Amino acid sequence: EIEEQNRLQDVDTDAMWLVIVAVFVFLMQCGFAMLCAGLVRAKNTKNILLKNVLDACVGALGFWSVGYAFSYGQAGGGNPFIGNTYFFLTNFEGNDTYQSWLFQFAFAATAATIVSGSVAERTKMAAYLCYSFFLTAWVYPVVVHWVWSSAGWLSASNVNPLLGVGLVDFAGCGPVHMVGGISAICGAYVCGPRIGRYDSDGVLLDIPGHSSTLQVLGTFILWVGWYGFNPGSTLAVTGGLGAVAGKAACTTTLSGAAGAVGCLIIFKVSSHAFDLGQTLNGVLVGLVSITASCALVEPWAAVIIGLIGSVVYTALSEFVKRKLRIDDVVDAFAVHCGGGMWGLLAAGLFTTAENHQAAYGVAPGTPHGAFYAPIGQGHQIFTCAIVGIVVIWLWVGGIMLPFFTLMHHINWLRSTEEEELAGMDVSKHGGSAYPDYVFTPSAAPVGFP
Amino acid sequence: EIEEQNRLQDVDTDAMWLVIVAVFVFLMQCGFAMLCAGLVRAKNTKNILLKNVLDACVGALGFWSVGYAFSYGQAGGGNPFIGNTYFFLTNFEGNDTYQSWLFQFAFAATAATIVSGSVAERTKMAAYLCYSFFLTAWVYPVVVHWVWSSAGWLSASNVNPLLGVGLVDFAGCGPVHMVGGISAICGAYVCGPRIGRYDSDGVLLDIPGHSSTLQVLGTFILWVGWYGFNPGSTLAVTGGLGAVAGKAACTTTLSGAAGAVGCLIIFKVSSHAFDLGQTLNGVLVGLVSITASCALVEPWAAVIIGLIGSVVYTALSEFVKRKLRIDDVVDAFAVHCGGGMWGLLAAGLFTTAENHQAAYGVAPGTPHGAFYAPIGQGHQIFTCAIVGIVVIWLWVGGIMLPFFTLMHHINWLRSTEEEELAGMDVSKHGGSAYPDYVFTPSAAPVGFP
Amino acid sequence: EIEEQNRLQDVDTDAMWLVIVAVFVFLMQCGFAMLCAGLVRAKNTKNILLKNVLDACVGALGFWSVGYAFSYGQAGGGNPFIGNTYFFLTNFEGNDTYQSWLFQFAFAATAATIVSGSVAERTKMAAYLCYSFFLTAWVYPVVVHWVWSSAGWLSASNVNPLLGVGLVDFAGCGPVHMVGGISAICGAYVCGPRIGRYDSDGVLLDIPGHSSTLQVLGTFILWVGWYGFNPGSTLAVTGGLGAVAGKAACTTTLSGAAGAVGCLIIFKVSSHAFDLGQTLNGVLVGLVSITASCALVEPWAAVIIGLIGSVVYTALSEFVKRKLRIDDVVDAFAVHCGGGMWGLLAAGLFTTAENHQAAYGVAPGTPHGAFYAPIGQGHQIFTCAIVGIVVIWLWVGGIMLPFFTLMHHINWLRSTEEEELAGMDVSKHGGSAYPDYVFTPSAAPVGFP
Repeated sequence: EIEEQNRLQDVDTDAMWLVIVAVFVFLMQCGFAMLCAGLVRAKNTKNILLKNVLDACVGALGFWSVGYAFSYGQAGGGNPFIGNTYFFLTNFEGNDTYQSWLFQFAFAATAATIVSGSVAERTKMAAYLCYSFFLTAWVYPVVVHWVWSSAGWLSASNVNPLLGVGLVDFAGCGPVHMVGGISAICGAYVCGPRIGRYDSDGVLLDIPGHSSTLQVLGTFILWVGWYGFNPGSTLAVTGGLGAVAGKAACTTTLSGAAGAVGCLIIFKVSSHAFDLGQTLNGVLVGLVSITASCALVEPWAAVIIGLIGSVVYTALSEFVKRKLRIDDVVDAFAVHCGGGMWGLLAAGLFTTAENHQAAYGVAPGTPHGAFYAPIGQGHQIFTCAIVGIVVIWLWVGGIMLPFFTLMHHINWLRSTEEEELAGMDVSKHGGSAYPDYVFTPSAAPVGFP
Repeated sequence: EIEEQNRLQDVDTDAMWLVIVAVFVFLMQCGFAMLCAGLVRAKNTKNILLKNVLDACVGALGFWSVGYAFSYGQAGGGNPFIGNTYFFLTNFEGNDTYQSWLFQFAFAATAATIVSGSVAERTKMAAYLCYSFFLTAWVYPVVVHWVWSSAGWLSASNVNPLLGVGLVDFAGCGPVHMVGGISAICGAYVCGPRIGRYDSDGVLLDIPGHSSTLQVLGTFILWVGWYGFNPGSTLAVTGGLGAVAGKAACTTTLSGAAGAVGCLIIFKVSSHAFDLGQTLNGVLVGLVSITASCALVEPWAAVIIGLIGSVVYTALSEFVKRKLRIDDVVDAFAVHCGGGMWGLLAAGLFTTAENHQAAYGVAPGTPHGAFYAPIGQGHQIFTCAIVGIVVIWLWVGGIMLPFFTLMHHINWLRSTEEEELAGMDVSKHGGSAYPDYVFTPSAAPVGFP
Repeated sequence: EIEEQNRLQDVDTDAMWLVIVAVFVFLMQCGFAMLCAGLVRAKNTKNILLKNVLDACVGALGFWSVGYAFSYGQAGGGNPFIGNTYFFLTNFEGNDTYQSWLFQFAFAATAATIVSGSVAERTKMAAYLCYSFFLTAWVYPVVVHWVWSSAGWLSASNVNPLLGVGLVDFAGCGPVHMVGGISAICGAYVCGPRIGRYDSDGVLLDIPGHSSTLQVLGTFILWVGWYGFNPGSTLAVTGGLGAVAGKAACTTTLSGAAGAVGCLIIFKVSSHAFDLGQTLNGVLVGLVSITASCALVEPWAAVIIGLIGSVVYTALSEFVKRKLRIDDVVDAFAVHCGGGMWGLLAAGLFTTAENHQAAYGVAPGTPHGAFYAPIGQGHQIFTCAIVGIVVIWLWVGGIMLPFFTLMHHINWLRSTEEEELAGMDVSKHGGSAYPDYVFTPSAAPVGFP
């Protein structure tokens, strides 16, 4: 009877943990909103903010109605590809709880909101509303089911996981950051660049955002939220998981810090300026890069993962904007998909046996990171990461590219030239976000209505 | 002895919970400050911010000295109308703890700060300081005693509650949001509208706030804080209350999201614009509306409650500003009192027996929501809600209307015309909040000093 | 076996607590960034923000590599002056945990970031990077070892503490606030005042910051973070420490509130304005002042401590800027070192026996606050506070004054006159933080590049 009492205490304690870390993750909605707002021009501020608010709201309704069901519903043992019960949060029972829905919803909303910045300053609201619902209700949940549901074919918690390990993705480099990042590049590609982003010779022109302060505020809030995202992915603290969460929080910090220092150095060397914006993206790519392996690696490895993340980000960002000439306003693809892919691979390299066991409860002898195995062995996590990367690209790209293309063809995606030049706020949202201020001639709304 | 060990563990766990959720609720002070600042003109920014800061500070001193005592002091079993011990937090014992004070203080400060925005841009600081202390020390605590103290005559935790149920108000639609909202409308009415709010024919003119970004920041912070407000009102997580908190967090999310979508649609249809400000108020009214019943209803009901909340808000807001011609700068009355009243009624309609038992520990057979009862039965919670709405209106209106009228007569309430035209910051606070920026002619401070 | 189960539950619960409060403390980085940004001119915004971001990042690497080791490493029982193991977080074992590193790192970053504001608008980035690493890796850890490591010579948790009590500093008036504040005054002194801060007769001229809103945002965020800082310094909630955390949260609130009201009154009387900036510094000095004794005093004492803190702050601030003519842009010295010294002394005066025992587990009969002892007795905590104040001044001043002087001599510290007049953002960071806005002639960047 005392044993039962203790078990119930554990249930209560874990419920508390999940509610609190879910709140931290939800706070990231505020962070993304401030970050994106800071990176657009003043004349498009209301537009991007409204998109970020609606992300969370439409995402909540999407994840309530069908998203959670597709993610985790396992009636009759479930199937490997998609969840099949709990629609509209009915028939909840067993281990599924409302706080679990809250935590998972906050993740879904994060995946959705990653896109808002990349298509900013030129996209219609209608397409964005459709996208938000579609991603949180369908695209994201299916990937979650594969990777995190114990019925999922790619899941590390499957009783019979792929290659004996499954995809080791502790907090969501794949389902959240890759899904968001791939959607972002699809959207930005189909949408086309903003007017004035490239000159007539195709040379990249700088379009600075209207507030570095908002960018810093957003980044710091995201960093704080990440302590819900990564350590919170233990989903519980009892049974020794509190210490796992502690380790995840430590590595998260170090990787973010290393990413920032990496980007600071890269841009100081290449441009001779201490670049605030790039340093902030360095923080973010460091945080993304450690997301898959936060509970699985040692602190020194986290520093290396963050540093390499800053290189991956820089290379991808330059490639996308200069070679592909895709106008990803907030570099969402380079940060989230770049960091996400590297993060999955890094888990394949640096996972230690001890951490793997503490975090996942795997049996002794389960393969761990290639770095710790003899040459030619220990490739399983790495190989699963490659499988994961490929299938997530195919699934998300195969759906979102046609989705945005369709939106474009029915003329729901791209704003008119007049609206874009005038700024979305004046043309679509009833006036400027900052009516009291005087703006420079180049920034002021023109020619509309 | 192990049983005692477990009991002490529960005490520690619950103390942790209460400290953490109190911090979330306190964060709402920051949210209100940013929200209100965004909704006033740049020239009155310091003024509104200082009022919001002092709300928290004066409120802390008021709630320390007498407020908590009037709320929860129960020497000799207490009495139904007002608390009678714990003045200056002395003689604390038994179940009353310092973390309980912190949590309740954060609620009191929330009730107080609701008013700041509605009387913004035209009110003197002295009246506001008096009001802050008076509300947190007297008006609010008495309502709390009625509704939440186990000695209170209207309390659901009274051993012999009204109609067998008492006022079912899980997290404070009545004591916090109605008290704040009624005070707000009293203040805005007595104060009179801002210069320029109505033209000479009484037609409403728009006075946009100076930063939509601050409004979004404030709203998101409030949303985060609400996860302390609503789930935190379990006051504990042990004994199965962790799951109750989880459910409250889920319904809170859904109602806020539904409120936002409701307002987005209403204003898109009526004005053909995607209105950011109205969508944000939709979030807030959704959150207010679910506050009484967050732990008591199913997720689908939360969506309906939020949607109806958006209708209530819109109707009240239009009525107040166009028919009553009261200038409530931030729509505090429509959001907080409108949502609060609807929220109390909604608890009377949608409370399920199962949730009622989990959240309140009521005996089987206790009446629950009218929606789930045969026609003509199950009206008790609804009826208590009507009683609560009426007595809170009488108590708060009966005190605050004379209070603000008195302040007005001794000339402590309304700023002079010169001060108002010049802006409160230049006239009363030593200069602009943004001295480096150039403002538009209509927004720039004029004629003072 | 059930006993062991309960012990493990406690370990998990305490791990949860430490992760969560560490997140709150880390949030203070965001608060300091916003506060400092608000207090500088628009043309130096990116510069101060980048410094604040790098504080956290460089601090993380410094505290990972050697800082935590110097603070808490106790190989072979340790020594009284400096830690000696755990470099790069290796060889972790026993009671040291990763969440402990996170919490302590967040403290170290707080100490470091205090300086950024005081040397703002005129300092080179290179010196600041060196400083950040040096402080978090060396200066701060040594003080922490003295005061908080059980091996430390000044530590209250030493088995044989100084005067039978050791330095009673529950949450860090000494190691964090005095260390940060003394470093701040050293930096500001060596750097010299900003151009235009004093006229040719040495008269102080006002240089207002560019956003009061950011100052309020930062202060509120700091206040929230303080609930991690002070209550979190219990390091655990089990064994009755949850109630200790609750009391600390209560006194923290009251002292911050009293400090604000104190400053409001002082400046209303002396300048006839309701001064927002001074009120905000009043909040901060109130929070600093209670930091040493938050778990040790009664609520009424917290109010007094906060009020006196506001007087200490005002006197020191005026003295520094008018008599010493040191240009401490954010008054970091007056707030943090002033409040920190007073806070240590206040613990010597107001500590009660009951609180001392609950918070520190001291034996009955251990000396407590002088206020509660017969005249001539009970001076031990107070005397230790004076010892602590002296040695911290000697250690920090003795290192940081030469450090900044050396930096100045090799020309790494002070920006050139051209850079300063143009603003650091244009001259060093690739452009304005707010490129869309028009600034007043006096605030606009001039003459560069």
